[in-house]
Amino acid sequence: MTSDAADPTVAELSEGEILRRILERLGQGTAPVGPGDDAAVIDAPDARVVATVDTLVEGPDFRQAWTSGFDLGWKAAAVNLADVAAMGARPTALLVALALPEHTRISFVVAVADGLRAACAELAPGCAVEGGDLTVSRTLTVAVTALGSLDGRAPVLRSGARVGDVVALAGDAGVAARGLDVLFERFADPDGTALPYSSEGLAELDRVAVERQLRPVPPIGAGVGASLGGATAMMDVSDGLALDASRIADASGVTVALETALLGTDPRALSGGEDHALLATFPSATALPAGFRPIGSVVARGAAALTVDGAPYRGRTGWDPYRDTSGGDARSAHQSVVSP
Amino acid sequence: MTSDAADPTVAELSEGEILRRILERLGQGTAPVGPGDDAAVIDAPDARVVATVDTLVEGPDFRQAWTSGFDLGWKAAAVNLADVAAMGARPTALLVALALPEHTRISFVVAVADGLRAACAELAPGCAVEGGDLTVSRTLTVAVTALGSLDGRAPVLRSGARVGDVVALAGDAGVAARGLDVLFERFADPDGTALPYSSEGLAELDRVAVERQLRPVPPIGAGVGASLGGATAMMDVSDGLALDASRIADASGVTVALETALLGTDPRALSGGEDHALLATFPSATALPAGFRPIGSVVARGAAALTVDGAPYRGRTGWDPYRDTSGGDARSAHQSVVSP
Repeated sequence: MTSDAADPTVAELSEGEILRRILERLGQGTAPVGPGDDAAVIDAPDARVVATVDTLVEGPDFRQAWTSGFDLGWKAAAVNLADVAAMGARPTALLVALALPEHTRISFVVAVADGLRAACAELAPGCAVEGGDLTVSRTLTVAVTALGSLDGRAPVLRSGARVGDVVALAGDAGVAARGLDVLFERFADPDGTALPYSSEGLAELDRVAVERQLRPVPPIGAGVGASLGGATAMMDVSDGLALDASRIADASGVTVALETALLGTDPRALSGGEDHALLATFPSATALPAGFRPIGSVVARGAAALTVDGAPYRGRTGWDPYRDTSGGDARSAHQSVVSP
Repeated sequence: MTSDAADPTVAELSEGEILRRILERLGQGTAPVGPGDDAAVIDAPDARVVATVDTLVEGPDFRQAWTSGFDLGWKAAAVNLADVAAMGARPTALLVALALPEHTRISFVVAVADGLRAACAELAPGCAVEGGDLTVSRTLTVAVTALGSLDGRAPVLRSGARVGDVVALAGDAGVAARGLDVLFERFADPDGTALPYSSEGLAELDRVAVERQLRPVPPIGAGVGASLGGATAMMDVSDGLALDASRIADASGVTVALETALLGTDPRALSGGEDHALLATFPSATALPAGFRPIGSVVARGAAALTVDGAPYRGRTGWDPYRDTSGGDARSAHQSVVSP
């Protein structure tokens, strides 16, 4: 890696200098104690805090040929904000653990910070990065912890779905998976090596799908809306609608009955992961909150956790990070998600 | 890697099965919502939560030849509990993001869980793992988020040290660094490759030092004690006493004056990292809380942030993860810590 005075590697900078450059991009948060001490202090107005962590690892989760620093920061924030939203909570703060190969350019690190900040600003205004950690690693890794507030409401769990409820979805179904197909079909060698992505010449729907794969836009505000609107169960659809609907069904002791007439016929709507839509159930007498559309109903527990158009779902249910990956090879990993 | 039905690799198990085996070792927490939903819900009784994240990466932070799964889980918990304690807070919950190579044996993963649980039980009773994330990675990585409660007290920041304060330490100074020296001198090839560690034949003090390096025992309860006892500033000593004392001095606009008569003459007491002792300042009229011993005083800001026996400290200040490491090579990384 050649030296470039205008864009040094992290190995050429001190930890303090790297931190300084990150913090100046993140802007000012609102926490009582933000970055710079041993820990942050975050407001938790109703005396509880919602907390979740999710990690993006280069290889299985992203490729630098496709994912810019900005996109990486954005996605790392978005997938965690979605988990907070799926509890019916309002995101309040992120903590970001960055593990960086020493050849990483500071421009990439700064772009990650920009992506984190932009995702917070657009998806969850009021939420900011309030702490973090820098380490060196052979494998570029971003672990984000998201905190949130229920503001006095009960959390919306996976286990509350009741027979007769409407099953509803806010956000995409299968769009991120279509985007990944486009990337592998048009921007990868036959052996799966990622080639640089460019949107030039792509059909509009393919371009949008790639954008959603790289920079998902989960409907964060719809999480609080669902809670206020009486949602009985909710979860973030990260591993595919079929698998995640089965999880709600199993946790609630019911069967989820989906209808393709409401979902569309692209099989990726059921099997494709990474859309980070919100899947929720509502009492049938309730008007669905803004952003949610009906996709099925909750019925008495049958032999299958999930039926599609009345028949037990037999397709691939979704993504399993251990079974579906091979040596950190994103191609086999992601292909198994999108090619059930 | 050969197949072993009694101890499969994580690639041979589903995510659900790995999680099940981890959760059965972690035992029951006390959070309103623990593992198994999109996010945990943790009590934050005074409407604030202390939050911090720290990552251990194989290579720069630990070697499997030296560090068992149990030790890894223990240390990942301990270093984060120490950051919560350093704010004067009581740890309430951990979230654990594990990134595992697919050849990792389930026995190792289960041992990590055992180490996490044991560290919580011994160092911070009442704190438990309440959530987490599993991913696959080429590089074994453990990112732990620790949450804590100030129980109505103000956080103890780095910036509050005042001229005339006593500088005091709870915990080890240089012991973990001595342990690392023993490991590199006796359990590594000349090229730095780690060889299996065994305590047989080691002198008692060396054995203890290695144990503290692998399984640090930060004085977590002393953090709340310091806060109740009037500490004006506090931090966790992870990067060496000299560097971390300089940080308190810089944040507070003072000079910290340490005395080797109180610290001992092993240079590792000043330069060695990873002890996770608590460094705090107290008004001189205050009786030091249990666990703290005086090591110096706070004086008006001079040319140097730190003096030792009255002279500006000119030794290596401590550990910088980017400057002090080379390609994830723990030998150069760690040697630079212990050989200033």
